[in-house]
Amino acid sequence: MFTSDTQIRVRYGETDKMGIVYYGNFPLYFEVGRTELIRKCGLTYRKLEDDGIVMPVISLNIKYHRPAYYDNLLTIRTIMRELPGVRINFRYEIINENKELIAEGETTLVFTNAKTKRPRKAPDYLLEALRPFFV
Amino acid sequence: MFTSDTQIRVRYGETDKMGIVYYGNFPLYFEVGRTELIRKCGLTYRKLEDDGIVMPVISLNIKYHRPAYYDNLLTIRTIMRELPGVRINFRYEIINENKELIAEGETTLVFTNAKTKRPRKAPDYLLEALRPFFV
Amino acid sequence: MFTSDTQIRVRYGETDKMGIVYYGNFPLYFEVGRTELIRKCGLTYRKLEDDGIVMPVISLNIKYHRPAYYDNLLTIRTIMRELPGVRINFRYEIINENKELIAEGETTLVFTNAKTKRPRKAPDYLLEALRPFFV
Amino acid sequence: MFTSDTQIRVRYGETDKMGIVYYGNFPLYFEVGRTELIRKCGLTYRKLEDDGIVMPVISLNIKYHRPAYYDNLLTIRTIMRELPGVRINFRYEIINENKELIAEGETTLVFTNAKTKRPRKAPDYLLEALRPFFV
Repeated sequence: MFTSDTQIRVRYGETDKMGIVYYGNFPLYFEVGRTELIRKCGLTYRKLEDDGIVMPVISLNIKYHRPAYYDNLLTIRTIMRELPGVRINFRYEIINENKELIAEGETTLVFTNAKTKRPRKAPDYLLEALRPFFV
Repeated sequence: MFTSDTQIRVRYGETDKMGIVYYGNFPLYFEVGRTELIRKCGLTYRKLEDDGIVMPVISLNIKYHRPAYYDNLLTIRTIMRELPGVRINFRYEIINENKELIAEGETTLVFTNAKTKRPRKAPDYLLEALRPFFV
Repeated sequence: MFTSDTQIRVRYGETDKMGIVYYGNFPLYFEVGRTELIRKCGLTYRKLEDDGIVMPVISLNIKYHRPAYYDNLLTIRTIMRELPGVRINFRYEIINENKELIAEGETTLVFTNAKTKRPRKAPDYLLEALRPFFV
Repeated sequence: MFTSDTQIRVRYGETDKMGIVYYGNFPLYFEVGRTELIRKCGLTYRKLEDDGIVMPVISLNIKYHRPAYYDNLLTIRTIMRELPGVRINFRYEIINENKELIAEGETTLVFTNAKTKRPRKAPDYLLEALRPFFV
């Protein structure tokens, strides 16, 4: 299991008239979480794209437990439970400064050849970079 | 079962560098869908808020089947399967001009007293407005 | 002078905790306005991109006069004062249901060759399509 | 003159199909910049709101010089040239890792009584907190 924590500060524009973070902004927070998890293993999602791999999301689930507010410093905990094949799965927990669980969720993405639009396996260099975290 | 179809045109700012609608914009499309479903029964979500009711989302699921592109005219089909109690559930299908299913999803919201932040039942006038669609 | 009116309904996710449309969402509304103006002359911005032309924005000005609220049906009036050369200029007025001026603004975009990233003139077929509106 | 530098990492969802940061996302970056400038003087915009002051934006200007890309680590330089009265003005420069100027802009906001919606002067405690930076 590979876990990465990163922090974001809630922006004013991410709130809605209810005074809380709009439910539709959590997928953006999740994206930040998985980007930083990949960086933690020494690669970047950007490099994957430069190598002709794109990773469209095929499923998303979110449970919203408590509201998040403007200017909150949120921790995005991103968890990879197993090494990716053609698909890659991330779980997320959003936690506020009081250690309260704001939301949790899950996304599945598919490694895709950017040109042919065909699914493909995760590249070997990504698996090698991830393996040390799964020992 | 109460179904409402509404259309939106994909905005440039809703796409991402993959050239497709960013996965995090679908919750916004779903919001448009449920807003228009409520309008179809003769009420507005805005009126509910004016009456001191807010409806935070507590869960969201999305399956992404095909990409949506800039300038696509998408149909948001919103489906209410049963009358709401304290919770209200909406299902969604996003369909493109070629009748292809782009994405489908589901949200659950909770009727909440805006002042006390306590859950409450759907107001009677909403149930009365919805009932004709469930006969 | 070529003017195009189009309408949008304010989405919940476009408001902020002040209870009004977030100031950063108006550029998105302007984009809808100029997209529809181009459609009105019989072309689409999407076709321009398919022909290898992109149009990055190089300047933006907005004056905010009155707040816009959730569920407001806004008219986006987009005005082209002169035929484009290498640059194309659009002016905008956002007007609410009570005919009140919410905001006005201006953007300048540059016709750019998508491959070379070099500025270029507006394509002839766009000028021909626009000319009837300037007689 | 009071200057504050803060950094943000460009999110995937902030790019558009041109492969660059959507022009409409810069107002969000500017908001982060002015929020951090206020934090630097020992206060928070959030505290101002808790004290019944809201600060709607009345004007925005942006010049876009170069594109910003996904995963770029951008510096938002925010500059306050003079102490606020009823209005407060911020200037911004967005700079990339190669010290290139991506964009520059300006916003004016108005101190407003949240209840009466009337303009008012900047609160004394804000002026006191800012004054040391203007000596």
